[in-house]
Amino acid sequence: MSKLFNRVALIGIGLIGSSLAHAIRKQNLADDVTGFARSEATRAKALELGLVDRIYPSAAEAVKDADLVFLCSPVGTYGALAQEISATLKPGGILTDVGSVKAAVVKDVLPHVPQGVHFIPGHPIAGTEQSGPESGFAELFVNRWCIITPLPDADPRAVERLVEFWRACGSNVELMTPEHHDLVLAITSHLPHLIAYNIVSTAADLEEVTSSEVIKFSAGGFRDFTRIAASDPTMWRDVFLNNKDAVLEMLGRFSEDLSALQRAIRWGDGDMLFDVFTRSRQVRRSIIAAGQDTASPDFGRGAPKNQ
Amino acid sequence: MSKLFNRVALIGIGLIGSSLAHAIRKQNLADDVTGFARSEATRAKALELGLVDRIYPSAAEAVKDADLVFLCSPVGTYGALAQEISATLKPGGILTDVGSVKAAVVKDVLPHVPQGVHFIPGHPIAGTEQSGPESGFAELFVNRWCIITPLPDADPRAVERLVEFWRACGSNVELMTPEHHDLVLAITSHLPHLIAYNIVSTAADLEEVTSSEVIKFSAGGFRDFTRIAASDPTMWRDVFLNNKDAVLEMLGRFSEDLSALQRAIRWGDGDMLFDVFTRSRQVRRSIIAAGQDTASPDFGRGAPKNQ
Repeated sequence: MSKLFNRVALIGIGLIGSSLAHAIRKQNLADDVTGFARSEATRAKALELGLVDRIYPSAAEAVKDADLVFLCSPVGTYGALAQEISATLKPGGILTDVGSVKAAVVKDVLPHVPQGVHFIPGHPIAGTEQSGPESGFAELFVNRWCIITPLPDADPRAVERLVEFWRACGSNVELMTPEHHDLVLAITSHLPHLIAYNIVSTAADLEEVTSSEVIKFSAGGFRDFTRIAASDPTMWRDVFLNNKDAVLEMLGRFSEDLSALQRAIRWGDGDMLFDVFTRSRQVRRSIIAAGQDTASPDFGRGAPKNQ
Repeated sequence: MSKLFNRVALIGIGLIGSSLAHAIRKQNLADDVTGFARSEATRAKALELGLVDRIYPSAAEAVKDADLVFLCSPVGTYGALAQEISATLKPGGILTDVGSVKAAVVKDVLPHVPQGVHFIPGHPIAGTEQSGPESGFAELFVNRWCIITPLPDADPRAVERLVEFWRACGSNVELMTPEHHDLVLAITSHLPHLIAYNIVSTAADLEEVTSSEVIKFSAGGFRDFTRIAASDPTMWRDVFLNNKDAVLEMLGRFSEDLSALQRAIRWGDGDMLFDVFTRSRQVRRSIIAAGQDTASPDFGRGAPKNQ
């Protein structure tokens, strides 16, 4: 198979950018990978790790002659970056992104996309709680879904090339509108992160229970929440600022439902609690059946070791 | 080392009961293990798996001549069970439990404990989302904490024997009052489970986002919550009915804090969001440093396979 793209440019080399770099190398998807990172340390690390062929402190420079450009910095930076690269984007090339929100990205980026450049927003539903150029790995996207949100006038051949790229990285691809993406992600990703950050914060502020107790006894459930609450603060700040309506809508529903559980606890309504607790098991089973989580108890953490 | 106990009785053979059985065998902590299970199927499975030497459909029968009796059924059953075994508990023996609440257990069980039997409540902070006699394994308690909540007049030698038992299972042991235990667990375990059950329920009720979308795109964070929301519904109903005050207190704080985050999102207060999101990372690091969770990204689920 010939390579899908001659040159790919990665604008931002964090967890997703570096994982893309690894996947491109491993699957041989491009002849040449260029990068942009604002910080000198990230640029040095990216070269040291062999993530890119060349890396620039200027995004405009990095995208020159690239057939495929990925915006993979926090979504709050996209507008300014799009403006910066506008003049040097290659005619006929594809501009895409990996941002966790899509309607706001279209609003921020589209005005800067020159005629003849294919702007096709995307979002791989994959990640870990780590960040930075050292955190990437080629398998991050394997068996995960990537959502592409083409605009109504998108060129089908360009969309198909981007879909092919993600499939070559091991992903399943689904197309939907930016607005629908933002609703789906509000419940499957944004609200879970908000709640996780919140409970960690609540626990840290207690007077009657010490921080050391919270840490020692975290295996009762709390520790699970600290994983996603260890995700990159800048990235997540930008997500919440840019998907406000959908997050507030889901948060309103969550809080209503939580009030109903609170009332059931206060009034000792065991049947109501039992019913709510019972139907969750089926959701877990479906997620495992869909290949989206491990079937091992406790995520495999509790497995016998050295036995 | 001579065995710690001649006979141990396990009242209930679920995840914890069966894990205790495995640990007792593996560490050679007793000559003889008896069991009680209400269901015929569980009794047959327990014998088939070799978890116990003998198993009875009567708890009174199962505790006869036992030097150490564990209540390890859902906490809502403890009062009736304590009444049932009261007459056959061995004088000088230890009666303990593994329940997730402690003040309510003392209230329910203590009135039925005969003179001369040492009642010492306990709670191993360990588990998985699975339940039933097949789900146990000897290493469940290794490097986990076990909280013992002795009553003011407890016999120090009996407490020491129980502590020794848990240490032999691989646990660290901490002593505290039942009331303090219930506060600590309300934040480290009960509230996390309630929130996890709640978000799974909220997601299942949406109209704009289908269940199939929630499942497909769950790797964005949601799937983590489904693990603890797949825990045993009976056990968790009983926890919330029996630790009402502490759970309502922690839930009140959580909801207040969540309202503050909601307000920050609505008004676009990025600095407030950034500050809250930043301090969570340190909590995660401390939990890993304390040996209470894996340092592997994504709980090790995202590790490269077959490479």
